[in-house]
Amino acid sequence: MIASVAPGVPVADISHLVPSYDIERGARLLESAIPYYPAGSVHLGVVDPGVGTPRRGIALRSERGDVCIGPDNGLLIWGVERLGGVSEAVELTSDSHRLRPTSQTFHGRDIFSPAAAHVAVGTPLTALGPTLDPATLVRLPRPEPEVTAGGRIRARVGVVNVYGTCQLDLAESDWNRSGLGRPSSVMVQVGGWTWVVPYVRTFGEASQGDPLLFTDSSGKVSLAVNRGSAAKRFGLEAGAWVGLRPAEGSPPG
Amino acid sequence: MIASVAPGVPVADISHLVPSYDIERGARLLESAIPYYPAGSVHLGVVDPGVGTPRRGIALRSERGDVCIGPDNGLLIWGVERLGGVSEAVELTSDSHRLRPTSQTFHGRDIFSPAAAHVAVGTPLTALGPTLDPATLVRLPRPEPEVTAGGRIRARVGVVNVYGTCQLDLAESDWNRSGLGRPSSVMVQVGGWTWVVPYVRTFGEASQGDPLLFTDSSGKVSLAVNRGSAAKRFGLEAGAWVGLRPAEGSPPG
Amino acid sequence: MIASVAPGVPVADISHLVPSYDIERGARLLESAIPYYPAGSVHLGVVDPGVGTPRRGIALRSERGDVCIGPDNGLLIWGVERLGGVSEAVELTSDSHRLRPTSQTFHGRDIFSPAAAHVAVGTPLTALGPTLDPATLVRLPRPEPEVTAGGRIRARVGVVNVYGTCQLDLAESDWNRSGLGRPSSVMVQVGGWTWVVPYVRTFGEASQGDPLLFTDSSGKVSLAVNRGSAAKRFGLEAGAWVGLRPAEGSPPG
Repeated sequence: MIASVAPGVPVADISHLVPSYDIERGARLLESAIPYYPAGSVHLGVVDPGVGTPRRGIALRSERGDVCIGPDNGLLIWGVERLGGVSEAVELTSDSHRLRPTSQTFHGRDIFSPAAAHVAVGTPLTALGPTLDPATLVRLPRPEPEVTAGGRIRARVGVVNVYGTCQLDLAESDWNRSGLGRPSSVMVQVGGWTWVVPYVRTFGEASQGDPLLFTDSSGKVSLAVNRGSAAKRFGLEAGAWVGLRPAEGSPPG
Repeated sequence: MIASVAPGVPVADISHLVPSYDIERGARLLESAIPYYPAGSVHLGVVDPGVGTPRRGIALRSERGDVCIGPDNGLLIWGVERLGGVSEAVELTSDSHRLRPTSQTFHGRDIFSPAAAHVAVGTPLTALGPTLDPATLVRLPRPEPEVTAGGRIRARVGVVNVYGTCQLDLAESDWNRSGLGRPSSVMVQVGGWTWVVPYVRTFGEASQGDPLLFTDSSGKVSLAVNRGSAAKRFGLEAGAWVGLRPAEGSPPG
Repeated sequence: MIASVAPGVPVADISHLVPSYDIERGARLLESAIPYYPAGSVHLGVVDPGVGTPRRGIALRSERGDVCIGPDNGLLIWGVERLGGVSEAVELTSDSHRLRPTSQTFHGRDIFSPAAAHVAVGTPLTALGPTLDPATLVRLPRPEPEVTAGGRIRARVGVVNVYGTCQLDLAESDWNRSGLGRPSSVMVQVGGWTWVVPYVRTFGEASQGDPLLFTDSSGKVSLAVNRGSAAKRFGLEAGAWVGLRPAEGSPPG
């Protein structure tokens, strides 16, 4: 569809591996990858279990100039906010910028791809439909970590990647809020279990099969097992909560 | 291989997820995607369990102008027919348009990709080998649905997609042949079991986990479960037969 | 990242299916695919369990002119040797050809992709860092087959592909070293089990579900099951050893 509307425009896939219906996983993937695309790119996202219902199709221009196109279900807004926030938003209603007849179940093909291709060749967003108020955009909940003075933290597992590494909704800078700074070793609590895990810079600082905490390439605190799966070893999946507190000088337990 | 023969020609993958040896699945995928490629595209298809045997390699030009290249095992012909049928057909025999030496087990690399690349840069099909009679092309069987006056239908599951949605070899227009038109609710029979399933426009009109029939983006009647797998819930796979009859006003059973 | 540094440079993925941490599998994939890329291509490889440790990042130019970029862990050298060997080698140390700040855990994004893109647009390798001695490059072990006069051979399974076909570290020409030449039938021994397997040209010469040996599209002797998995049927995985001897005229057993 893109090649039909915009021949020669290069297409670079982020991923086709987002689990079915998992809007949050798609939103996090877009958010983490989008800063590394060239400024002004057009980003097409389709995780769309509500296709054909009254949920809106949208195009959002970011302050950096990129445009994100897809369903209004929370998939796009975090990515746009990583690029400075929304500078322009429209609902995709134009009959002349979609495939006709339009199916009820495949808007990725019929509405979103053609819209992205039109934008890529210079069509202004206002041609695609009426302006909408960014305050009305659908947002997914995103619980903040709970950080207490004294260094106790509760944080949510945001993403489990293909390696089983668990990215927490916790920035390295959040440790400063605890008043203790970045610890070198952390007591990690999941359910009734507690582990002492070294907080290192990279995987290879732990022995093969051993656990580690590190600050990942997005600046998030992550729990991993060197050449293994933290998700399996700690029994974690996206949405689970993990307890953390510095372990320096304190015995485990 | 394509970049070596035709540098700069854009390549857009349909899929690398066709199950091994499943020629019919590949043929259906090509058929469903091909209308949405720009007219005049060159389509390379390789599901080729007969590689190295006397089965022919072929190039087929469609009435729309697209060219399909691959093995003569039924993979390509349905796609060409979606574009108006065969206007030109050759067997790929030219030594000067293939990789030499030519392996016995990887014609995707050695014969089909180079041929597709040559066609993409303007080589006439007649340079690739002798013309062949389209009537001699290998075809896969494709059972028609059985539609009786009074609205009883038996149809075959053609494709089960990654979501577990079951596309039937039944067009929405086939309901007209039953004399009853499109029903709003359907009794679906699989083996000894019968379910009453609403026939709606899109997934979101069923509650999460509930079944639905809909006309999909290819115009085919399909059986789905909203955010679930119809294949699992109904115990279906490609090739299975399903019974259907309108359920309006009739009690289930 | 590549598009940011080198807009418009075409990118062709070999694969994203190398198992996690499996450097040898990645090295074999690169080696088998690299001859078929256009001469002078830039190849980016990232299987990098040692990311962030003192292992080096490297760029290697081959005698054919291609450049391979990635970690110095054995991933790249076999590919370069398929193209005639190393003509130039540097360590990737330049601060001005990487993403800043540079993460400790994602050098594919921060170091290797930018370096590859810079090379693709003409940056000389010497701009990326100091020259290194190719003799210091990390190499993976690669056991040779054991071939005895009289035709007994022990060979290692090098790659098991998605079909379950087992490529041995044994070239067809190795049969000549046994003094017997290429047999038409082979006794294949795995553990305490021995099978008689025909040595044919292609899959379709065996009945569906039957085993075969053939010389694959890389010139390696491979064990397969027509439309089935040799890995499952013979209980093999990469790294296993297989015994082979000609079976002509000899009863199985």
